[in-house]
Order: sequence, then C-alpha cells, then structure tokens
Amino acid sequence: MTARNLNIDGQRLLSRLKALGEIGALEGGGVCRLALSDEDRLARDLVTSWMRELGLEVRIDRLGNIVGTRPGVEDGPPVMMGSHIDTVRTGGLYDGSLGVLAGLEVVETLNDAGIATRRPIAVAAFTNEEGARFAPDMMGSLVFEGSMSVEEAHAVTAVDDGTTVGENLARIGYEGVAPCGAPALHAFLELHIEQGPVLDEEGLVIGAVEGVQGISWTEVRVAGVSNHAGTTPMRLRHDAGYVAGATIGFVRELASLIGGDQVATVGRIELYPNLVNVVPGSCTFTVDLRNSDEECLREAEQRLHAFLDDLATREGVEITRHALARFVPTRFDEDMVRLIERSAAALGHSARRLSSGAGHDAQIIARACPAAMIFVPSHRGISHNIDEHTEPDHLVAGANVLLGTLLDLAD
Amino acid sequence: MTARNLNIDGQRLLSRLKALGEIGALEGGGVCRLALSDEDRLARDLVTSWMRELGLEVRIDRLGNIVGTRPGVEDGPPVMMGSHIDTVRTGGLYDGSLGVLAGLEVVETLNDAGIATRRPIAVAAFTNEEGARFAPDMMGSLVFEGSMSVEEAHAVTAVDDGTTVGENLARIGYEGVAPCGAPALHAFLELHIEQGPVLDEEGLVIGAVEGVQGISWTEVRVAGVSNHAGTTPMRLRHDAGYVAGATIGFVRELASLIGGDQVATVGRIELYPNLVNVVPGSCTFTVDLRNSDEECLREAEQRLHAFLDDLATREGVEITRHALARFVPTRFDEDMVRLIERSAAALGHSARRLSSGAGHDAQIIARACPAAMIFVPSHRGISHNIDEHTEPDHLVAGANVLLGTLLDLAD
Repeated sequence: MTARNLNIDGQRLLSRLKALGEIGALEGGGVCRLALSDEDRLARDLVTSWMRELGLEVRIDRLGNIVGTRPGVEDGPPVMMGSHIDTVRTGGLYDGSLGVLAGLEVVETLNDAGIATRRPIAVAAFTNEEGARFAPDMMGSLVFEGSMSVEEAHAVTAVDDGTTVGENLARIGYEGVAPCGAPALHAFLELHIEQGPVLDEEGLVIGAVEGVQGISWTEVRVAGVSNHAGTTPMRLRHDAGYVAGATIGFVRELASLIGGDQVATVGRIELYPNLVNVVPGSCTFTVDLRNSDEECLREAEQRLHAFLDDLATREGVEITRHALARFVPTRFDEDMVRLIERSAAALGHSARRLSSGAGHDAQIIARACPAAMIFVPSHRGISHNIDEHTEPDHLVAGANVLLGTLLDLAD
Repeated sequence: MTARNLNIDGQRLLSRLKALGEIGALEGGGVCRLALSDEDRLARDLVTSWMRELGLEVRIDRLGNIVGTRPGVEDGPPVMMGSHIDTVRTGGLYDGSLGVLAGLEVVETLNDAGIATRRPIAVAAFTNEEGARFAPDMMGSLVFEGSMSVEEAHAVTAVDDGTTVGENLARIGYEGVAPCGAPALHAFLELHIEQGPVLDEEGLVIGAVEGVQGISWTEVRVAGVSNHAGTTPMRLRHDAGYVAGATIGFVRELASLIGGDQVATVGRIELYPNLVNVVPGSCTFTVDLRNSDEECLREAEQRLHAFLDDLATREGVEITRHALARFVPTRFDEDMVRLIERSAAALGHSARRLSSGAGHDAQIIARACPAAMIFVPSHRGISHNIDEHTEPDHLVAGANVLLGTLLDLAD
C-alpha cells in the first residue's frame, strides 16, 4: 500500500467523536465543555491517553495547550494539525473536536500502514478557543504563537465567578512546563465544520478556506435619562434603548451598503431598568462587524462611529464605546489552499473556496507558518447550538482531505 | 376660625413624608418599598398608627387596602382621599405617599380646628399600586372597587420568586376581614406628584387633572433562529433582535404619526442567547402605548400589530403577542375638576388642566363615584427614580388645595 491509496478509518473517527462528545453531554443533545472546566479536564485526559496509545510524544505547555508529536524520517519543524476541544455553553459535537480527532485518525492511519513521513507531524488541542468564560477567544493559539504572554493569559478572570485562567489551569492539572511563543512549524492545517450555511446550501462537501474575516467587536454604552413612559412627552426623552434600536436598524443598512461578505450583528442588549413602563435610562449593547477585506471593515467601523456620534447629539445622550476584540482579516497560504483543492479533487469530492466568518486557531498560527483550513458542511449553517450537525460522510471526507494534504506537506 | 381660612401644617406634612421615606430608604436617596415586602409592612404599621392617633376608625380589607374613616355630622357615604404607599424598586419619596399623608394632614387640620364635616371623610392606602412584583398595577383599587375579585388577586404570583399575593399578605399580617367591591363613596380625591414635566416646565404649581390616558401594554415574543454572527450571511438570517430594533424605530414614528399626547415606549428587552457573536434566536420585548383618546389608542395598537405582522413575514420569524395591561382613558368628574381649579385660585396658586400619562388608583375608583386628581410639579418630570423631587412649597400647596376641595365636597 502506498501513501496515495490511504484512507482513514471512518468508523474509528466517528466513534472517537462520539466518545469525546459524551463528556459534558447535554440532555437533548449537544455538549457543554467550557474551557478549564471539570469536563474540559476529562476531555483532555481522554485525548492525551489516545495520543499516548498512538505513540505520540505529548507535551503540555504553560497555558495547557496539548501537542502530540510523531517523529519524521528527518528532524525539523513538524507539519501540525489541530484545533480545540472546549465548547460554548450550548455547543455541538464537532466544533473544534473534529480537527483534533481527525488529526489523531490521520496518525493512526499512518501507524497502521507503517508509513513514516519525511517531516515530523503533530496534533494540537489549543486551550480556550471559544472564549466563553475567559476573553479573548483563541487564547491558547495566541499564547502558543506568542502574540499574548503566558502571564497576561494566566491573569484573565472568568466572566462569571472571577477565578483566573491560572487558577483553573492549576485546578484541572493542565499547567504544563513546555514554553510558549515562537513555535517552529513547517505548516498548520485545521479541519473544521463551516459553522455557516454556504457548503450546505450549495450541496458541496469540502471548503478550501482562503482566509478568515476580520472581526470588530464594539461594546456600546448609552447614558440617557430614565423616566416615566406615560408622562414624558416624546420630545423630552433621552431614551437609551432607542439608541440600541436605531443602531440595530443602521447596521443592517450598513451591511448592505458595504456589500460583499460584510455582516453586522447586534447580539447582546441590556437595558436598565428594563421595565415595561420606564423609558430606558441606560443601555449596553454590542456590535459585531466582519469583513474579509480590512479596508471595508474599517469603513464599516467608521460609519458606525459617525452614526453613533450623530445619534448622541440628536438624542441628548452620552455614548461611550469600548473595543472588545479586533482581528484583521487573515489570508491563508495560497499554495496550501491549492493543495487542499487538489486533495479534494483526487478523492472526487466537490469543493469550493470560501472565507471563514468565524475565528479559528488557524488564523493565529498563520502568523508563525503557512496555514490553511479545510471546511466540511454544517447542516443549515447551525453552530454554537445543540442542533449543530454534520453528515458522517462529510466528517470522513474532511478527514481524508486532511490526510491527503498532510502527506503532501510532510513529504 | 372658619373652614375657609384653614391651612394645613406644612412642617407636619413634610415630617410625616420624611418619616415614611425612611422605611426602605436607599443609599444615595430614594426608596425601595415593594408591595407586600417587609418594608411595606413597616410602612403600613406606621400609617395605621398615625390613623389611630388621629382618631380614625381603621379597616383593612381582604386585599390589605387600608381605610381610616372620620365620622361626619350625618351618616352616609364618605368623601375619600388617598393613594398608595408602595413604591417601585428605585422610587422616590412622594409618589403615592403624598396622597395618603396629605389626607392624614387634612384630617389632623380639621381635628385641630374642631371642625366637623357634614359627610364622613376617609383616607385610603391601596395595596400594590405600582405592580412592580405583582401584576396588574393598581391591584388594590381594582379589588376595592370590584373590577377584580379577591380570589384572583390572591392567586397572582410574584415575577421574581413565584410567591403569591395571598401568601405575602398573610406573611406581613395585612390580610384583613373587610369585604371588597362595590364601595359606597360620595367622591374620591387623589393628590399626586405629576411624574411628568409639564407643570415644572411651565412654572405652574397645581394641575387639575381632567383624566388619565388609556394604557396599552403588549409583550411581544419573537422566535427566530439563533446562529453564528460571523458565518451567517445577512440574507439568511432570522434575527429576533432585529424585530425589537425595528419596532423601537417604528413606535417613535407611530407616536409622531398619531400625534396629540400619544406616547410609545419599548422599555424592556430580553435577547437569547444575548451574546456578542450570536444572531439572537429569540427575543421578548414590551410596547407601552398611551393616549387620552380611546380611538387614537386603538389606531396605534392596530398599526403596531400590522407592522409586526408584516415584519414576521419579511424576517421569517414567529411573533406572538400578549396583552399585559389595557385601560381605556378615564374622564374625571367635570364638577370636581372645576372645584379643584377654584380651590387653587382661592389660594392664589397658578394652575392648569392636564391629563395624567401615568395610571393612578383614582382612575379605578372613578368607576364607583365621582373622582378627580390634583397634581403638583415633579422636578424635570423625573419619577420612578431616586432623583424624584417636588419642592416642599409645592407639596404643601397641593395639600391645601386638597383640603379646600375636600371641604367643598364634604359639606
């Protein structure tokens, strides 16, 4: 058997996905496995035990990132596969886990076939990709790659109980000793579910991901005047909730105006005092803007700020803004995107290029080495939801494209 | 001294207002004395002790409404003064309390002057006017007047902990034995702060209230599809939060379109899951519409419903509506409004007629007997807020107009 005829064992991949999905499983489906929780610890124990069974050398770094390495015929920087095993509060089975477990499946397939690659290969599970309790998201890859210091990350506190990343890492026993920053990698490949509807809508199996959209998150705080909803004439109001409402309308127009792949979302609103008969006196809401073109994203931000400035004057309210997150768009390595397309074609899978609207570890690791991503379809585009679903055939197809692309890169 | 020369004791009124305001006082000012809370119990104990000191016969009915009665020279239905002593969570010192304590002050003034009125007079403190924990608001007067049964009111549960009105009445020891419904009253007079900016803006001291605006409260629930804010193209969204935002914009246009004293407020919004990077899958929000003209109010409601129907189709979401409260506009007794104007003029106070934008016990009692209200200015129109304020001179002026009008009615 030559490497070119290899196929991964689909049943084995699916049974590992199922076993991992049982840790933190929610009633009614889906999984809650928040970063650094007890469920995360159990998931880490399972994944590292699998890595050791496959003969990988397992290293845990100071932020709990897990890397299992398989030696190559030659020494040198490895080709890394990987993703994350933490989830949001109401997550699905495949977001993150697929990229890690498909990496293990690739390793086991090579082991079974007795194939040695020229370069070492590695499988990584990055800490806290989701950022559900600890900001920012993609924290593990940021520290692994060196854009964030270990100390800064350790000091981050949970949004709910105020405990730190460092405390929780120690508690679950996953603060390792391997250093972080400036990793030596030949290339990085991440297989992931699309988390969007494009492949599913178009009936395609594989996405060759060209890049990740830039992300701009703004928290907007409005200080108006709380007043009686019956007795305060409209002309005398300073309604903080109105600012949120007007902004919701504005960002939809903005997305249409900027065009292309621009998206804009007001996902969180808190009114105070939040009563039926009181004109809202203050309001906090968020605006999420994304575009694969940095210039367009900046224009969207500028138009949003101009709109808010004007609104503050017109409504007689005070509006303050706070950047919660900002990532410039990422362009993946063109050669790697082409390898993915070729690998999909060789296996007979339909494919297209697309951008990722979600953030991923690969966009961070792309700062350190050539990187790219492989997408498989998400049923109806649903993710971060217990109804997340990808067809088993598509999971297996994605893992086979990962295997084919890895062999190209590692030889 | 004849009754015509009488004046209330301003300092005594102010010191009672201050003493009552200490029960449930908030740090930084204002008061939290939710209906049927321990603070409400203490306030009831204080008010009933004052009533007894003034020689009033105190009766507590099955919903905890407190009525203190002073006999007249003749038997027959009394002239009742009153309001409420419960507050919203961040209330002021005068909303409600002024009407009750000015009633006591009128009684004490008559006692001190040795004046007997022809008709009996009474002072009432109605249970749960604010409706902050138990819906509907004006519950006490509704049951007192007979529009709501005692049993129905007892079964109402708190929005926070699910305990019932009946349980809480028993807990604080204010479930009395006096029957409710079909009260025999000669007339009802309620002195209250305006809770709006009209008198303050125009530099006037007394408002002769002609009526109360009709109130329409609707809770709107939107079922959309929760999805990833980065990966879901705008055209494929079913954003429940967008419906709230669009409605906020619409109701402002609606108020302008209907004109007159129409006001429209979205005061409460809850998004789910309420996260920066998730398109809201569901949303609950409220719309508060008020107008002093029933026909205009109905038109506003119809336009709102047509807007929501259209929006549901356009956005591909499900919108359900639930009426939280509906009161038709109240017209107060024209003769009584004229008496109030005459009493203000006799005391040399500037006055104007106006409508109340807020709901009041008087609008309910107006179903049982002639009724009207006296307003005094609210500084900057602020109420339901710890910054609620009325000048001491205006509080005293209002109580003197109450005294003058009462004497006209009781003789």
